[in-house]
Amino acid sequence: MDPTKKTIVVFSGDLDRLMAAFIIAVGAAAMGNEVTMFFTFWGLNALRRDNPPAVKKDFMSRMFGWMMPRGARKAKLSKLNMGGMGTAMMKRVMRNKNVASVDELIGQAQDLGVRLIACTMSMDVMGIKQEELIEGIELGGVASYLGSADEANVNLFI
Amino acid sequence: MDPTKKTIVVFSGDLDRLMAAFIIAVGAAAMGNEVTMFFTFWGLNALRRDNPPAVKKDFMSRMFGWMMPRGARKAKLSKLNMGGMGTAMMKRVMRNKNVASVDELIGQAQDLGVRLIACTMSMDVMGIKQEELIEGIELGGVASYLGSADEANVNLFI
Amino acid sequence: MDPTKKTIVVFSGDLDRLMAAFIIAVGAAAMGNEVTMFFTFWGLNALRRDNPPAVKKDFMSRMFGWMMPRGARKAKLSKLNMGGMGTAMMKRVMRNKNVASVDELIGQAQDLGVRLIACTMSMDVMGIKQEELIEGIELGGVASYLGSADEANVNLFI
Repeated sequence: MDPTKKTIVVFSGDLDRLMAAFIIAVGAAAMGNEVTMFFTFWGLNALRRDNPPAVKKDFMSRMFGWMMPRGARKAKLSKLNMGGMGTAMMKRVMRNKNVASVDELIGQAQDLGVRLIACTMSMDVMGIKQEELIEGIELGGVASYLGSADEANVNLFI
Repeated sequence: MDPTKKTIVVFSGDLDRLMAAFIIAVGAAAMGNEVTMFFTFWGLNALRRDNPPAVKKDFMSRMFGWMMPRGARKAKLSKLNMGGMGTAMMKRVMRNKNVASVDELIGQAQDLGVRLIACTMSMDVMGIKQEELIEGIELGGVASYLGSADEANVNLFI
Repeated sequence: MDPTKKTIVVFSGDLDRLMAAFIIAVGAAAMGNEVTMFFTFWGLNALRRDNPPAVKKDFMSRMFGWMMPRGARKAKLSKLNMGGMGTAMMKRVMRNKNVASVDELIGQAQDLGVRLIACTMSMDVMGIKQEELIEGIELGGVASYLGSADEANVNLFI
């Protein structure tokens, strides 16, 4: 076990939970930790790029692709969303208070060497291809997660 | 602390979170870990059997019993449920991609020696009796959870 | 790493998740652990006092203050709330079964020396001032959380 390693499973795609996950990850990386984040289920959507290249998909994958938010900028609050009004209000307040957006936090995390790993099983089920994700994302499965978690001293599921 | 022990508190009864919890648990057990899962609050519903024997219950317990899903097969997605349509769609895709269902994962977990512990306080509050749970479930309280967590190197709350 | 230290990030303000967080915290403290709880985002609402002194706030902060529950007594179940009916039912059952309320659990936690830390960034974003929180709450940021988590052997995100 290494006291400078941390892992976070990012299961949720909610704006507020993504904020929490990245604030902890960026904070830990800035303090010299090796941080690994695993994006699974709805969390995977945070890594989708805005204008993905056209990829061949079956009908179900196309449906999931349409229904799920493409990128962190489309993420909504888990509470008080109120048809998008609460989310817009929260984002505006955060901008006014100089709190970084999730997109900015992803950039900071990558600059600080945080490893962002997309869960291959979730990609398969949701029909998301690697070229639809932002740059710099690794792919991995549950064994890869467990390998990292075994070496870390803080492991969170968000 | 033992690097081959893991614990997971399964608080949620959502299909997607149950999937995540069991995929991690089964993966860890397959890699030689001793895994203990504590089912509390809504997570307890995943362990309810389909055709429970008749048990005497007070009015409130009967109400909770009716309102909550009986078994993992009745669990719904936390997002995109859309009146059951999204959940059905996700289940179909998972079947097509040969992803095990939660029921199958519970069986695999038990075969691999994962300990499944039902939280006694939750059982008391929700009025669920041991004979309403599937076979092979242990009962325990918060002290039992903390005892296991103290020995483990990965502890998740899902 | 100290096997008698535990941390819990309390992100959620849902009644059921608050119950789970405090039952684990109080249980661990009663067994001799040093427990630190970090209240962030919706979790912060659990620490708001019922009759706060008048504080100057900008429009957005006032809006957030109105929309979010003031104190744990106003918290709702994450599931089966059913317009408040499910929450009321659950609270009544818990009282009948002699399960402590979240308010009582907060008191027990404080009596047992559990450190309750409010996330300063969340306070800033939501426009909540220290004098609006109950007595005995410390303030801290992500670095303070990571410092505690590094020393603990169990770290949960709820």
